[in-house]
Amino acid sequence: MTLFPEIIEAYCSQSITKRGIENGIITVNTYNPRDFSKDKHKKVDDTPYGGGEGMVLACQPIFDCYNSIEKIDKKEDFEFIMLSPQGEKYNQEIACKLAQKKQIVFLCGHYEGFDERIRIGLKPREISIGDYVLTGGELACLVLIDSISRNIKNYLGHDESAHNDSFSEGLKGLLEYPHYTKPREYMNMLVPEVLLSGNHKEIEEFRKQESLKRTKARRPDLLN
Amino acid sequence: MTLFPEIIEAYCSQSITKRGIENGIITVNTYNPRDFSKDKHKKVDDTPYGGGEGMVLACQPIFDCYNSIEKIDKKEDFEFIMLSPQGEKYNQEIACKLAQKKQIVFLCGHYEGFDERIRIGLKPREISIGDYVLTGGELACLVLIDSISRNIKNYLGHDESAHNDSFSEGLKGLLEYPHYTKPREYMNMLVPEVLLSGNHKEIEEFRKQESLKRTKARRPDLLN
Repeated sequence: MTLFPEIIEAYCSQSITKRGIENGIITVNTYNPRDFSKDKHKKVDDTPYGGGEGMVLACQPIFDCYNSIEKIDKKEDFEFIMLSPQGEKYNQEIACKLAQKKQIVFLCGHYEGFDERIRIGLKPREISIGDYVLTGGELACLVLIDSISRNIKNYLGHDESAHNDSFSEGLKGLLEYPHYTKPREYMNMLVPEVLLSGNHKEIEEFRKQESLKRTKARRPDLLN
Repeated sequence: MTLFPEIIEAYCSQSITKRGIENGIITVNTYNPRDFSKDKHKKVDDTPYGGGEGMVLACQPIFDCYNSIEKIDKKEDFEFIMLSPQGEKYNQEIACKLAQKKQIVFLCGHYEGFDERIRIGLKPREISIGDYVLTGGELACLVLIDSISRNIKNYLGHDESAHNDSFSEGLKGLLEYPHYTKPREYMNMLVPEVLLSGNHKEIEEFRKQESLKRTKARRPDLLN
């Protein structure tokens, strides 16, 4: 649900998302609350009660748009998510769990935000992708679509495996170890000897130590 | 710098970003490392030394692409950012500071990640938009472009003011208070009386208390 469906459509017609849709692994539909506005000028927002800058998204177009979407019956297969800087902090664990859902409706905000009664009446799960302000919920929605879809079977090709990435299960919460590829020497910088040794046990140990070292240096919070 | 410039271009040709570019407030150029590959098949990646799944982005196309970009002289006006889940956690403070820069070069990763020598040799500032795995750096780059640009003068229109949003300066680190707009009653849900009172002092106090209450309930970490 977005006032700017073209942002979602533009992204979803590119790259891996496009392929995922073409292969029938995921389906993405856009619904524009503006199409449901009963205002003669198709207005979807109005000034805030109590004064202040900015415009607030009104109830009627959002409620009617939400209610128009055909939703699956089973509650455990369905999720309704509002993208909001006030929501729970998104992370890889949530991404993996959401990948189990059969249908997710995302509500993207814009302007100053939603009339509070949208929260009260429709009871969305509020999710925030981070502590920064975006112009709208669309980019946050795309971040969720991408990070969730990656965990759906057959979405990624062989070379794009969802394992062993930072924050994926493979590394158990550690940052990734450094990667090296050809050539062995580039501008006087060498690939560490151990990676050329063919000794799988030593390589595994080296990578584990590098992961630990990097996590300790950059994100000690992840080690708790 | 991206292997999928069409993702960046598709987003930047929409909505507020489009307007910001048309108005000359920001400029966005894309550079594709693939165009700089010296491999006859224009390859940009290769298998990792030491084994493992996935492909690693090789040094040569990235170094040559980076060096091809005309950069401004003054170091304090320039920033080179690698989007990476291993980077420092992005937040609104960083967004505001980056809005002071005259030029930012973003390096978007893909596949398993970068050859470590790209980090060692080009010394990018690594930034992560959150603890989740994305298919590539493009969405993270767009999140930065959007959240940084909002803080540049004249980028936002009057109705889109960058103030008073959650995490913007106006609220001093608190979550936003609830907004209400017309009508006064929607599906038996009423606008709080105080917002209709016209008493600015009481309204201000109500909003402050609501901000505090919400922050305490949802993000107590922000109160420290």
